[in-house]
Amino acid sequence: MDQKDFLTNIAFDSVVFGFSGGSLKILIMEYHNTGFFALPGGFVQRNENLNDAVRRGLKERTGLDNIYLEQFYTFGDTARYKPEIMQTILESGNYSLEKYEWLLDRFISVAYYALINYKEVVPQPDALSDSCEWYDIDALPPLIFDHADIVAKALQTLRDNLDRKLVGMNLLPARFTMNDLQKVYEAILGEKIRRTTFQRKMLSLEILKRHEKQYLGKAHKAPYLYSFED
Amino acid sequence: MDQKDFLTNIAFDSVVFGFSGGSLKILIMEYHNTGFFALPGGFVQRNENLNDAVRRGLKERTGLDNIYLEQFYTFGDTARYKPEIMQTILESGNYSLEKYEWLLDRFISVAYYALINYKEVVPQPDALSDSCEWYDIDALPPLIFDHADIVAKALQTLRDNLDRKLVGMNLLPARFTMNDLQKVYEAILGEKIRRTTFQRKMLSLEILKRHEKQYLGKAHKAPYLYSFED
Repeated sequence: MDQKDFLTNIAFDSVVFGFSGGSLKILIMEYHNTGFFALPGGFVQRNENLNDAVRRGLKERTGLDNIYLEQFYTFGDTARYKPEIMQTILESGNYSLEKYEWLLDRFISVAYYALINYKEVVPQPDALSDSCEWYDIDALPPLIFDHADIVAKALQTLRDNLDRKLVGMNLLPARFTMNDLQKVYEAILGEKIRRTTFQRKMLSLEILKRHEKQYLGKAHKAPYLYSFED
Repeated sequence: MDQKDFLTNIAFDSVVFGFSGGSLKILIMEYHNTGFFALPGGFVQRNENLNDAVRRGLKERTGLDNIYLEQFYTFGDTARYKPEIMQTILESGNYSLEKYEWLLDRFISVAYYALINYKEVVPQPDALSDSCEWYDIDALPPLIFDHADIVAKALQTLRDNLDRKLVGMNLLPARFTMNDLQKVYEAILGEKIRRTTFQRKMLSLEILKRHEKQYLGKAHKAPYLYSFED
């Protein structure tokens, strides 16, 4: 993390959404011995495209290469500049404040959201943090800087894009039941939807392909499996 | 423009849309003696919010304070880094390359689009440029860096937001005819719309308030004036 290898004053943060147990979750890092929680993020190398830097960061945290990723907003208020927090994080990790002085400068952060299949990921902490864990979107710890605002805007963007870009498909396995799909929608929207209303709407969009039934021992109730049309 | 007053590696660019003579136009700067054309843009002061920096820049170019402004994407590819272009611009303006060396570094640019009432604006060039003019969106000069990509993405975002955010209202005076509104939609979408289809759709949205008729000498054909509901 040598200053000369990175652009200064510019960072990125990622809101990584996963879906499990009926609820929407995001990845949160906890920093060594500080009690600070934050979104996974990073800095842009001088010879690297911004989008590639974000993919590199996500690969390091999730092990995944091909992640559905969308840039949604760049956060640049002066109020997000709190050098004392970064100083505490560096000191707690026994990093040289002299060498890493550039990290104490003001950063504008480009925020992305990612949608991943929860089951494919084993979250990995980075050098400065001792954990990287899934948290239920409704039960996040307090986050540093403006990271709570970044999460709120990511969730709003996800809701806005739910029908338009069919982002929900990235949170599910390749084949799923109508009930699985409904649970993803309900978790993102934060509200219950009537089963018949949901099913009618989804089928009317003509984006689903029906496959065989899913037999789980109660054959008379076996639901159909669906996938998204290519 | 002293380096110590500004964040490094981060810039902004604005696509300023106006509507006149039935077509959509944007503001373009031409730099002294270079033949280079570019979007109006600028840099962020160390003590300034990113959004405020963009408003400051727009105020300088248009004289307007309350502009409809939306951030839409941050451009960070390495391919946009062309220091020889900035060097030519500085040399043509007789600026010291030593003092302004920081401008020759790589910049990530946060892009915004603005919608303004064409009639309210007298475009003002900045210190480095000798003109700031309206250009028809279909007849832009070749632009430096990735500015053509920025314009294309701004236009796509404007189209995507046309119904959802009613952005068209910012391009019209407070009262307008249905025909005025249709011309704005057609200019943004780049296609003709059937008059009856357009009128039915607009009225069904229940966003328009009908006022008196606009008499222009041919009283038997006078169209109604409308405004957007508050």
